[in-house]
Amino acid sequence: MTDNNLENELRPAIAILGLGPMGQALAAAAIAGGHPTVVWNRTPDKARALVAQGAVLAPTAVDAVRAASITVACMIDYDAVRASVADVTDWPTCTLVNLSSGHAGEARAMAGWAAQRGIGYLDGAILTPATTIGTRAATILYSGPRSLFDRGRTLLETFGGTSIYLGDDVGTGAAYEMALLDLFTMAVGGLAHAFALAVAEGIELAAFARFAKGIGGLLPDMADRFADQLAAGRFPADVSSIASANSAVAHVSAAAAARGIDTAPLEAVQRIIGRAAAAGHGGDSYARLAQFLAKADHADA
Amino acid sequence: MTDNNLENELRPAIAILGLGPMGQALAAAAIAGGHPTVVWNRTPDKARALVAQGAVLAPTAVDAVRAASITVACMIDYDAVRASVADVTDWPTCTLVNLSSGHAGEARAMAGWAAQRGIGYLDGAILTPATTIGTRAATILYSGPRSLFDRGRTLLETFGGTSIYLGDDVGTGAAYEMALLDLFTMAVGGLAHAFALAVAEGIELAAFARFAKGIGGLLPDMADRFADQLAAGRFPADVSSIASANSAVAHVSAAAAARGIDTAPLEAVQRIIGRAAAAGHGGDSYARLAQFLAKADHADA
Repeated sequence: MTDNNLENELRPAIAILGLGPMGQALAAAAIAGGHPTVVWNRTPDKARALVAQGAVLAPTAVDAVRAASITVACMIDYDAVRASVADVTDWPTCTLVNLSSGHAGEARAMAGWAAQRGIGYLDGAILTPATTIGTRAATILYSGPRSLFDRGRTLLETFGGTSIYLGDDVGTGAAYEMALLDLFTMAVGGLAHAFALAVAEGIELAAFARFAKGIGGLLPDMADRFADQLAAGRFPADVSSIASANSAVAHVSAAAAARGIDTAPLEAVQRIIGRAAAAGHGGDSYARLAQFLAKADHADA
Repeated sequence: MTDNNLENELRPAIAILGLGPMGQALAAAAIAGGHPTVVWNRTPDKARALVAQGAVLAPTAVDAVRAASITVACMIDYDAVRASVADVTDWPTCTLVNLSSGHAGEARAMAGWAAQRGIGYLDGAILTPATTIGTRAATILYSGPRSLFDRGRTLLETFGGTSIYLGDDVGTGAAYEMALLDLFTMAVGGLAHAFALAVAEGIELAAFARFAKGIGGLLPDMADRFADQLAAGRFPADVSSIASANSAVAHVSAAAAARGIDTAPLEAVQRIIGRAAAAGHGGDSYARLAQFLAKADHADA
């Protein structure tokens, strides 16, 4: 046994359940970090490249869990994770870290399910793309029992970048993930819609991209203003008002309609702006809009 | 007459029609730049502060146009501009620069209307908030006859920052403005939606804002990728795929629904993603989505 093998034997073993692009990236980072790595996927062909790098392919998820001191699940949803480990009748001393996407309520339900089975459970949320895993650019949030995070920390840090422990409310990581994914999804939808309009108008796309970047540059200040104003409950329109947004969205909807482009995303935003304006908040800043998204308001419209 | 007055007399006079926040900012910048400045607004009380700074309040829009070598209109829409100057039966040698918001088709129609009356017409689009006017941060786009832009340039540059001439197709400035305003509107809608979810989940808002800024940092690269891939007609999913977006938006919609938050904006984006996935583009990058916004696709859904 070489020194390197000895060192690896002393490192805790990790199991990765789910080998989509993110699961594969997590497994590759664990292998690169020198951890004995056991992988499992419903369709085993996804494991081929990882086995070539040194991973052991477990025939079942149960076998994977039994071989590891931490099991990291990264699957399509929480149901898939439960289904994959449902046959583990006698759960070993192994923390289950669920990095699958889900909302806070699902994370809390999963923690309850795990507690009934004596499974130590941490919930996590990966905020950065699979390409960042194992690099400094990765950001992963964790919530659940502090002792489990502290025990697993060294191993979890092999996934790279920044590991942030948010506290013992197991739903917090998922809550952050969903709210950030909400903003990201709307930004992607906005890019797609804006570029569709730019293409329809025959605008030179590289030039348009240069201006579009400027919009990204406005987001940081706007995010701070939303946080400050929502916390304070006061919404002075220092820069732009809901009334101006109301006028702007009407112009953009007309532009999209004139080019035969689906106006549904804009109209959904327009209804929120319209509800805030109708409630007498036309002179307030955009941050006020966050108060006009409850379904109760929605029903009024 | 002091030297300063003499210098001002030699500068061309400018008329500003429409004294909303943007019109007031334009007039204040013209005054600060030493131009004789005539202002007009449907309700004259908006002119008070500008008159104190040295502007002349014209009793009618007709009087304002007759006193100036450039008339800059910044009103709620193109119809309002036409209505305000409809009584100018004998248009003087004065360029009309329309900085009101509208789409490319409206700008072209307005140019036709102006040509019939012998009005020299430039269309423009202000890309930055009123607070930037007169500062280096202002960005204003112009399109229409090159000779009119060159003649008015010195005066238009008193509005500050960057004046960009886009060419003689009078609709180009409006086309850029609408596509950028589209992205901006969706980003504001996304911030409002994400913060509504963050508030509902009890997340600490200042901490959430720090993460939300990271999303703004992703936009520049994404904008470049949209431009490059749409120009090339190829959509490799280097970072994230439409399939992953499809999964993400379903999770976020579930999270919003679980908290009683209006899911309409997300659902509108989800339908676009769903159309692209159903057409077999799940393995492509987000930029492909811009091709699934035509109303014809929409009707299929």
